[in-house]
Amino acid sequence: MRIIVDAMGGDNAPLEMIKGSALAVENLGVEVLLCGNEALIKKLIADNGISDKGFFYKDTGDCVIEMEDHADVVVKSKKDSSMGVGLQLLSDGMGDMLISAGSTGALIVGSTLIVKRIKGIKRPALGTVLPTRKNCSLLIDCGANVECKPEYFEQFGIMGSAYMEKIMGVKSPKVGLLNNGTESTKGTSVHIDANKLMAESEAINFTGNIEGRDAVVGEADVIVADGFSGNILLKTYEGAGITFLSGIKDVFYSSFINKLSAAVIKKSLKSFMKRYDYTEYGGAPIIGVNGVVIKAHGSSDAKSFYNAIRQGVSMVESEIINVISDAVSKK
Amino acid sequence: MRIIVDAMGGDNAPLEMIKGSALAVENLGVEVLLCGNEALIKKLIADNGISDKGFFYKDTGDCVIEMEDHADVVVKSKKDSSMGVGLQLLSDGMGDMLISAGSTGALIVGSTLIVKRIKGIKRPALGTVLPTRKNCSLLIDCGANVECKPEYFEQFGIMGSAYMEKIMGVKSPKVGLLNNGTESTKGTSVHIDANKLMAESEAINFTGNIEGRDAVVGEADVIVADGFSGNILLKTYEGAGITFLSGIKDVFYSSFINKLSAAVIKKSLKSFMKRYDYTEYGGAPIIGVNGVVIKAHGSSDAKSFYNAIRQGVSMVESEIINVISDAVSKK
Repeated sequence: MRIIVDAMGGDNAPLEMIKGSALAVENLGVEVLLCGNEALIKKLIADNGISDKGFFYKDTGDCVIEMEDHADVVVKSKKDSSMGVGLQLLSDGMGDMLISAGSTGALIVGSTLIVKRIKGIKRPALGTVLPTRKNCSLLIDCGANVECKPEYFEQFGIMGSAYMEKIMGVKSPKVGLLNNGTESTKGTSVHIDANKLMAESEAINFTGNIEGRDAVVGEADVIVADGFSGNILLKTYEGAGITFLSGIKDVFYSSFINKLSAAVIKKSLKSFMKRYDYTEYGGAPIIGVNGVVIKAHGSSDAKSFYNAIRQGVSMVESEIINVISDAVSKK
Repeated sequence: MRIIVDAMGGDNAPLEMIKGSALAVENLGVEVLLCGNEALIKKLIADNGISDKGFFYKDTGDCVIEMEDHADVVVKSKKDSSMGVGLQLLSDGMGDMLISAGSTGALIVGSTLIVKRIKGIKRPALGTVLPTRKNCSLLIDCGANVECKPEYFEQFGIMGSAYMEKIMGVKSPKVGLLNNGTESTKGTSVHIDANKLMAESEAINFTGNIEGRDAVVGEADVIVADGFSGNILLKTYEGAGITFLSGIKDVFYSSFINKLSAAVIKKSLKSFMKRYDYTEYGGAPIIGVNGVVIKAHGSSDAKSFYNAIRQGVSMVESEIINVISDAVSKK
């Protein structure tokens, strides 16, 4: 399997992306095609003693998409960037998946316009695996489509179900629609219509509307949302994690005796916190395009970048694109 | 000061509402007008040895708004309910504030149509005080208006600022607009227009868009939101609290030695958890109507009902209705 890596995207690019790629070669037996400033990449490999086994290069010079760039530069003024070239290579069949820690907006636009949508898919969506009280759930969409039509939601449900079934091994995943109440009459007119469509759908195991509270507790395997409120849920959950876990830490450090007690339970607590560490969960797949595309967290280090590659490899191995394509064409 | 109490609304009505009212008489020196089944209320007072000092009664028999009732029954078939009568009494000047732990929807509809809006206010909104990492913030709206026009958001900002300044003592409160990104071009077309209006407003200290993450960390004093995504934030934050705090508890109980350590830090941890306990923070004011109306949590017990009354008393004492009225008329 060959992984196309946008080596220049992300806060810690390209060094951490290179290191993560080396981990993928070592542990997953894949080849990696690094898109970026080839001279710089090779210098960093040499300077840091990184193994270049399994590495291939596509030089894209200094053309990089910056966070402040408009999303559509990836198909316009910066189509020769590491991300733009990487996406074109994926579209041309030169690799099995692409990963980038660069601009989310540009990656969504580029995936949609260069890799293109799976036939029948109206809008690709950004998915994120959330650790919940019960286990984990896929939140889809969490930012690609801020304004949605009712029919998009059903497709998000179909795509999310395919993901949870094939990648996470959940049989007949429960699909909930993120809403401000559980009754079918709740939400905006778009959500009311979406609820009706989803309730009538035979392609998903729809369990009705779900509130933010039950969503993060884990009552649905697939949390279907418009990209606006899905993003609110995701970011609020992240913020709550920061607020609560740092609060607990304050308690531990508030006195000498507390510090001693904290030392005792440190190990158990660490494994608990690991459950809520996004770097363990890989990245956010852009689901619905004709290829596996993973958005790694902007602040990814080598470990989280490697985990995101591993997630993409599972998606390639499970032939998720065909599964989604079949599910949508059957509808 | 006289408090009008919907004694029949809430999961634990009427007993906990009566007990909470007695606490208010005892600690705040107020009078309480209990609306509900007078015979039942008096029997519970006698059976439980509750002091009836400062209590007055308005018998509304068995007419109670149930959770499954449509919100508008409060002005139609059930206008003689404990909530409907209570709101009419507030509107008639027979009390200084009203509190109910009953149906949120009915209380919003009833407040808007019976107590009526403050002149110039387009839509009343539901506010909630959120404990954050930094301190606490007011989230407005968190459920009254699922679909909003751009001009509503500025008014939510004005009302929220008045609340944070008068009730919480925050000078020139920072106002953020809940969005899926910080850039002014983010969000739906409604949010983009709202951002522009708020940025131009001289009536608020607008600090721009705010993401869910920064909102719950406490970067804004007033978090302005449409009622749909405000509700998603609120419920997600609640669910995250359940998920994280129960996870920490699991760690404490996972072994004998952990249990011992937990016992040591129990006291510090309790005071931390108290910070995130909604029962400490009172209820959710319905802001923008011509009277102080507090929605207490549906599962309120005596303590949380009392805290919600105390919050309402602060609102009455600070003459918040006049403050909002002045701020809106100046615009």
